[in-house]
Amino acid sequence: MRVTCTFQAVRPHTLGLIGLGAIGGSIARQVKQPGSGEGIVVVGWSPEPAERALAAQQGALDDAPARATDVARVADLLILAAPPAANIAQLETIVPHLKPDAVVTDVGSVKRSIVARAEKIGLHERFAGSHPLAGTHRHGFEASRPDLFRGAVVYVTPCRDGEQAVREVVDFWQTVLEAEPVVLDADQHDAQLAVTSHLPQIVASVLGDFLAQHAPPGASIGPGAADTTRLAASEPGLWTEILLMNRDEILPALRGLEESLGTVERALEVGDAAALTAWLTRAAKWRRRIGGS
Amino acid sequence: MRVTCTFQAVRPHTLGLIGLGAIGGSIARQVKQPGSGEGIVVVGWSPEPAERALAAQQGALDDAPARATDVARVADLLILAAPPAANIAQLETIVPHLKPDAVVTDVGSVKRSIVARAEKIGLHERFAGSHPLAGTHRHGFEASRPDLFRGAVVYVTPCRDGEQAVREVVDFWQTVLEAEPVVLDADQHDAQLAVTSHLPQIVASVLGDFLAQHAPPGASIGPGAADTTRLAASEPGLWTEILLMNRDEILPALRGLEESLGTVERALEVGDAAALTAWLTRAAKWRRRIGGS
Repeated sequence: MRVTCTFQAVRPHTLGLIGLGAIGGSIARQVKQPGSGEGIVVVGWSPEPAERALAAQQGALDDAPARATDVARVADLLILAAPPAANIAQLETIVPHLKPDAVVTDVGSVKRSIVARAEKIGLHERFAGSHPLAGTHRHGFEASRPDLFRGAVVYVTPCRDGEQAVREVVDFWQTVLEAEPVVLDADQHDAQLAVTSHLPQIVASVLGDFLAQHAPPGASIGPGAADTTRLAASEPGLWTEILLMNRDEILPALRGLEESLGTVERALEVGDAAALTAWLTRAAKWRRRIGGS
Repeated sequence: MRVTCTFQAVRPHTLGLIGLGAIGGSIARQVKQPGSGEGIVVVGWSPEPAERALAAQQGALDDAPARATDVARVADLLILAAPPAANIAQLETIVPHLKPDAVVTDVGSVKRSIVARAEKIGLHERFAGSHPLAGTHRHGFEASRPDLFRGAVVYVTPCRDGEQAVREVVDFWQTVLEAEPVVLDADQHDAQLAVTSHLPQIVASVLGDFLAQHAPPGASIGPGAADTTRLAASEPGLWTEILLMNRDEILPALRGLEESLGTVERALEVGDAAALTAWLTRAAKWRRRIGGS
């Protein structure tokens, strides 16, 4: 189910960011763009002092305190923009420091675990998960962009009794970052992303690893193989977390894909041109409908 | 083994093209660009009269006769730019019509079969295969470009006693189209491309077909999944031919890839984070070295 929400704007006075990588850094940069987040004070923290300094120096932050809790203390909207496991750990750490009405979200690619944790620690009325479909395989603040979220779908996953938090988080993505928020249950989100994102990551990395081992030395890698493996350049530590956190949804999808590969293999073995063409045609029809270069 | 060849230029007076799709059309357009193929007359044929008319109308052809044999009759260099099976069929048809010193090449993605056929019909001294790594998943003359081959690697695969033909074909790609020809044995070519091109095509199409069936209706397909499946939009008929012609090389590669997928599946099942990170890191290192967006 896909529900696009529109609410009346409630802008945060102070936006807090914990994590200043490609996603956190891009949020900060876009909010500080002229015409985007007028009047919003952006305060951010990264475990790497050099990244904090760079973000402040480039005008993406109004303040870059030395501790994450100092960000939590001043934020009206706090965004956890570290990898998923670190976000969950931060959630517990920052709770005692939050302002009474502060709303918290995150930007991780898996949503059941953090939503469950927010509910467990009693933050459910003030937390809603976010997942912007605007990833990049590059990482760190250097990979941030001032327009990463414009027009991008952002899934927002509610906690129980979290309507007000959902409203504020949806509103932030929509009015400040010009993204397209879509409210989706965390269970549905993780099942859907297992197929549409986590499986493509596995396929790209398995193919990349295979080519690393089996392409003859010096063989040219054409644009087709480069595109098919582009995701393999993604951050290994981050993806280990994502794959493990969502493995109950990913494993059945992976087994289904292996079955499809087996079917193609058998068609090739027996030289079944009609079966190969039917399969390639189904895939081509779908891919041409998706569009994009 | 990768050998880049440089020879003295011997430009064809008349270039013949049989096939005016994305590849054949791009050759014609680039030759007719100011500063590229001065003095070269381009004569082309396509089974579709509308495609012939369009190519002539857009200035890519000097002449567009109604029969393929009319192209063969006037060409000093004849390029077969239809799908692989049609190229092999054309090879036999055009032989009686060729000028005595004409050289013939093709642009197919599989090379053993056409090289073997050229040798069998006694054309070995005047044929060398070509395979430009400048494919596009789009097709037809509308998908042609005037700069598709500039800087692109082009494999040139010799017949026995075909040194002179190799020289002329290499020279054409290098001096007229500013490509980077690499002479490679047809056996080596097909083994290499099974891994670097045909396997990525299978992976992209299997994933595309899987997503077509299993992505929830309305689910957003992010840029990662779009890139990983881009090749799935390729022409199904063409790829059925390529996969079948090279299946003895493709099948072992496909089985190896399936084994790798199985290894990842087991690591996920037992929650082996170290194994997952090691695998993702190997793939990431390779992919980051390849470069490109």
